[in-house]
Parts: sequence; structure tokens; C-alpha cells
Amino acid sequence: MNKLKDLKKDFLNEFEKIQELEGPSYLYDPIKYFVKSSGKRLRPIIVLFLGDLFNNNKKDSINGALGVELLHNFTLVHDDIMDEDDLRHNVATIHKKWDNAHAVLSGDGLGALGPLFIGKIQKNTLSILIRYNEVILEICEGQAYDMEFENKSFVSVSEYLLMSSKKTGSLFELCFEISSLISDKYQEHVKDLKKLGRNLGIIFQIQDDILELVSDDDRMGKSTYSDVERHKKTILTCLAMEKNLSDWNKLINSINNQKTLDKKKSIYNFLVKNNLKEESDKLLNKYIDECNEIIMNLPKEIQSGLNELISYIIKRSK
Amino acid sequence: MNKLKDLKKDFLNEFEKIQELEGPSYLYDPIKYFVKSSGKRLRPIIVLFLGDLFNNNKKDSINGALGVELLHNFTLVHDDIMDEDDLRHNVATIHKKWDNAHAVLSGDGLGALGPLFIGKIQKNTLSILIRYNEVILEICEGQAYDMEFENKSFVSVSEYLLMSSKKTGSLFELCFEISSLISDKYQEHVKDLKKLGRNLGIIFQIQDDILELVSDDDRMGKSTYSDVERHKKTILTCLAMEKNLSDWNKLINSINNQKTLDKKKSIYNFLVKNNLKEESDKLLNKYIDECNEIIMNLPKEIQSGLNELISYIIKRSK
Repeated sequence: MNKLKDLKKDFLNEFEKIQELEGPSYLYDPIKYFVKSSGKRLRPIIVLFLGDLFNNNKKDSINGALGVELLHNFTLVHDDIMDEDDLRHNVATIHKKWDNAHAVLSGDGLGALGPLFIGKIQKNTLSILIRYNEVILEICEGQAYDMEFENKSFVSVSEYLLMSSKKTGSLFELCFEISSLISDKYQEHVKDLKKLGRNLGIIFQIQDDILELVSDDDRMGKSTYSDVERHKKTILTCLAMEKNLSDWNKLINSINNQKTLDKKKSIYNFLVKNNLKEESDKLLNKYIDECNEIIMNLPKEIQSGLNELISYIIKRSK
Repeated sequence: MNKLKDLKKDFLNEFEKIQELEGPSYLYDPIKYFVKSSGKRLRPIIVLFLGDLFNNNKKDSINGALGVELLHNFTLVHDDIMDEDDLRHNVATIHKKWDNAHAVLSGDGLGALGPLFIGKIQKNTLSILIRYNEVILEICEGQAYDMEFENKSFVSVSEYLLMSSKKTGSLFELCFEISSLISDKYQEHVKDLKKLGRNLGIIFQIQDDILELVSDDDRMGKSTYSDVERHKKTILTCLAMEKNLSDWNKLINSINNQKTLDKKKSIYNFLVKNNLKEESDKLLNKYIDECNEIIMNLPKEIQSGLNELISYIIKRSK
């Protein structure tokens, strides 16, 4: 795991250069504030890890990594406005520290900076840039579904998975696609590598949901159970609705006036009683098995590296 | 002028295809609503007009036109959030008709759609796409200055011109740059054509400001004098501050409690007394002269076309 820590350090050294940008402070102060805050930097780590594994040009990998992380940061800043979240990684969100106007504009600025780094990639630049733009639209669509779900009394697991695939899977896929397109050897495997990336994004999202609802401490830096409070749909609530909609609705209505701790207990008990933790794990394992199958069909020399990367992402949150 | 009307019709026919996009209505309903509303469509008209003048590939021109108009629409949706404007082209803005979340996301969606059309251009695609991205950041910087100015008690004319150049000039420049880069014959004149475009953008912005403050009807579809009310800086207020800051401040303080009509009269009288309408016209003419000079040095066969285009933009608002 030391290697992955080193890659994160490498990335953060490069990301630090955002602090040197000059221009109107109305735009750049919130941008610099946001990129300085802590974050897993999972997406750029993937690009750098695969860059090493594929023997890619280092500079291309770094520009790819900066591009995907800036895109991710752009969506976080705007998602925080939409969700009216006050905290991100335990510090005030931009719209909370400044206001909505600063958050809208600095999100746009982060979104504008991303493709400038992608444009510096020396290999397959145009294809990568076009895919990068397609992914931005796909992420918007995923976020739109996520917002729509808040007002729906029933969301199926397959609707949820489509949302996750677009909102999270698309950018993970892009990390794998960029790494593949800047490589000499693995361009012919781009389709499998993309599929691997997208699956990994869905796995990541499902895990995030499971943690959000079942852990009772605050290790995600977000408030546990807030998803249920805000009618956000997660894999567990979708499974609950598919399994037993009327009981789930009864539960939600009955706990409305309970204290937070009691709510947590009620929801937790419902999930346990209905074996929903097991079912979400089963779904997770289905995606993990698919990943393993893809890896087995990829060239031998990259298999153990890919396994290492996937273990890192899966174990990260366990 | 019939030709320009025809080009607008051509563009609107193409733009209509946005209505056919499929996906989550949370994202696409506001997008379709916004692009359906009326608008001058000046930027795409420029690309199509120059496309004709330069004998460019029609499909490339149309994709360029769609790209610049979608980018413009993206910035309008987000600017309306930042300015808390309720109306645009006399219909409710997205954040007013829906809410901020819809407006943030659909603005992002418009911004994501733009480069997808730019990516379809067949000639110099990568250079154009990279310049397109650079311009997005420049527009963000221009908007940032514009927002910063609201809290400044003094903004110089040169600061104002830098803001205008970034916020408006950059995209006009891009229209000329795209048209030049997709042409066979005029790529070598890209530098002059870009300069012409940027100047034209600044002219357009100055004119917009003059109309905003001096016309007493509502032909712009925005509320006259609202700029002063909201501490927005315009060319006239910057000229006023440079000419006579203390008298301007006195005026602004003294009219605070006046009725709108009286405010209008007071401001109008101040501007007339200080010859500020003449001074802004003088500045405007300086930029127009520069445009004429650039045109004289461009190939003969496109001079009258360029003059026609510039007259259209200048006369549009007179």
C-alpha cells in the first residue's frame, strides 16, 4: 500500500500548483480553498497507478490525473449547493463559507481548468478530450437522476444502478480509458479496461452507501443517516423498497418524530431483519466477481497490479 | 439584413434539435426550456456569417455555432443565479421557475453539451477545442471581476474594459477564431480576426451598458437602472467615477430613497451634465475605428462582408 500512498503524495505535489494560479480572487480563492482540503484523490491515484503499471509517459499520466480530479472537484462543489450540504471533509463548503454565487462560479472554474490539463496530454489528445466531455454530461445525468429520486416514493435497484453508473461509474471508467489511451501496449484492451473502471465506480458507490447507513461513527465525514432524512436513495433503501415497500414506508413514517439515535436503531434493525446488508453485499460481490473475470482475460503482466488496485479501492472503506 | 435573418433561422432550426435530447427530465427540461426562449443568437450568427464569407464547410460552421451558443447559454443560466435575476428575455429564469439546484445542474449540462458539438468539427478540432476550454475559464474570470466590482466603491475604466474583454470579448473572439480555423484561406489571418472579434465583443458590451442606463423603455428585456441599484459597474458609472468620484458618490447617496422615476432622472441628468454619454461614445468609436483599421488590412474580398457584420452588431442596439 506504500506505493499508493506515494502516488497520492506525487499527485498532491502536482495539485499544489493550482495554488499558484493568478487572477480574480472571487474566482480563485474558493478554488484554492477547495482543492487544498483533504480528499481521497482516488481518481487521480487510479490514473497514476495505471500509468505506472502500463509504463505510460509520466507527464501524460499527471495531466490525466489533474483533469479527472478537477472534474470531480467541480461536481462536488456544485453537488454541495444542490444538496445544501454545509460540510465536506469536515470543513465548510464553498457556498457556506462564501455564498451560492461564489460556489457556482468556482465550480465552473474547476470545471474549466480540468480540460486544460487534459488538452496537454500528448497522445490521443482529441479522443480523450471528447470522451472527457461526454463523461461530464453523463455525470450531470447521473446527478439529475439522484436529485429526481429524492421526490420518488419508489426507486428500483436497477434505476439506482443506472444512476450510480452515470454519476460515479462514468468517471472511474474515464480514469481507466485515459490510462489505456495514453499507453503504448494496452489501447487494444480499452473496452475491457473501461468496463473494469465502470464496475469499480459502481462498487465504490455501493460501498459508500453501505457505510453511510450502517456505520455509527462519522468516518466518512458526512452525517450518518442524513441520506434517509433527505430522501436520498441508497442501495440499501432501494433494496428495502424492492423487498418490502409497504413495511419500509411504515417504518419511515413511524420514525419521523424519533430522536436521531432511535432512528438509526430502527433503520438498522429493519435492515438486519430483512437481510438487506447481506443482499447489498451479494450485489457488491457480483460486481467484484465481474471485475475478477475481466482481469483474468487481460494480459498476465498487469493482472496482479489490477488486483492490487481493486483491493485498495474495496478495502479503503472496510 | 435579410441574410442575417436567414442565418438566424438556419441556426434556430439546428438549435431545435436540442429539444430531441433524451434523458432525466430534471436535467433536460430546464435545458430545453432555456434554449427555446428568445435570444439574439448573435454569436452563432457570427460563426455562420463568417462561415459563408470564408466559404467554410457548412457542417463545421453549424457545429461551431452550436458550441458557442451553448457555452453562452450555460453562462447566462449561472449568471442569473449569481445576479438573482428573475427574468431573462421576459420569461422566468430557471432558478426562479424551478430552483437553484435545477439551475446549477442544467447550466452545467448546457456547458457539457457545447464541447460535444465543437468536438464534431472536422478541421483543426483539437486546437479549437483547447481554445474553447481556455475561453470558458476566461469568461469565468470576467464574471468574477464583474462580481467583485459590486463591492468596490471605485472601478477604473481600464478595469472595466479588462472585465468586458474577458466576459464578453473572449467569446466573440472565439467565434472569429473558430471561423478562421475551419477555413481554408483565412487561417493565416487568425490573429487579426481574433482581435476584430474581441473588439467587437467589447463594443457590444459597452453598447449594452449605454442602453441599459439611458433608454427609458424596456427594450432590452431587463429593468433599466437595475445595474445602479445593484452596484453593478457599467462603462457609464466607471466613467462617472473617474471623472468626478465625489460628486458621483454624493449623487448615489442622495437618490437612495427616491422613487425609481426620480432616480432615473437624477442619474440621467448627472450623465448629461458631465458629458458622459459623449465620452462613452468616444470610447466606443475608438474601438470601432480599430475594427475598421483591422478590416482594411484583411484580404479585399472579405472586407465588405466584415463591414456588414460589424454594422449589424453596432446597429442592432441603436
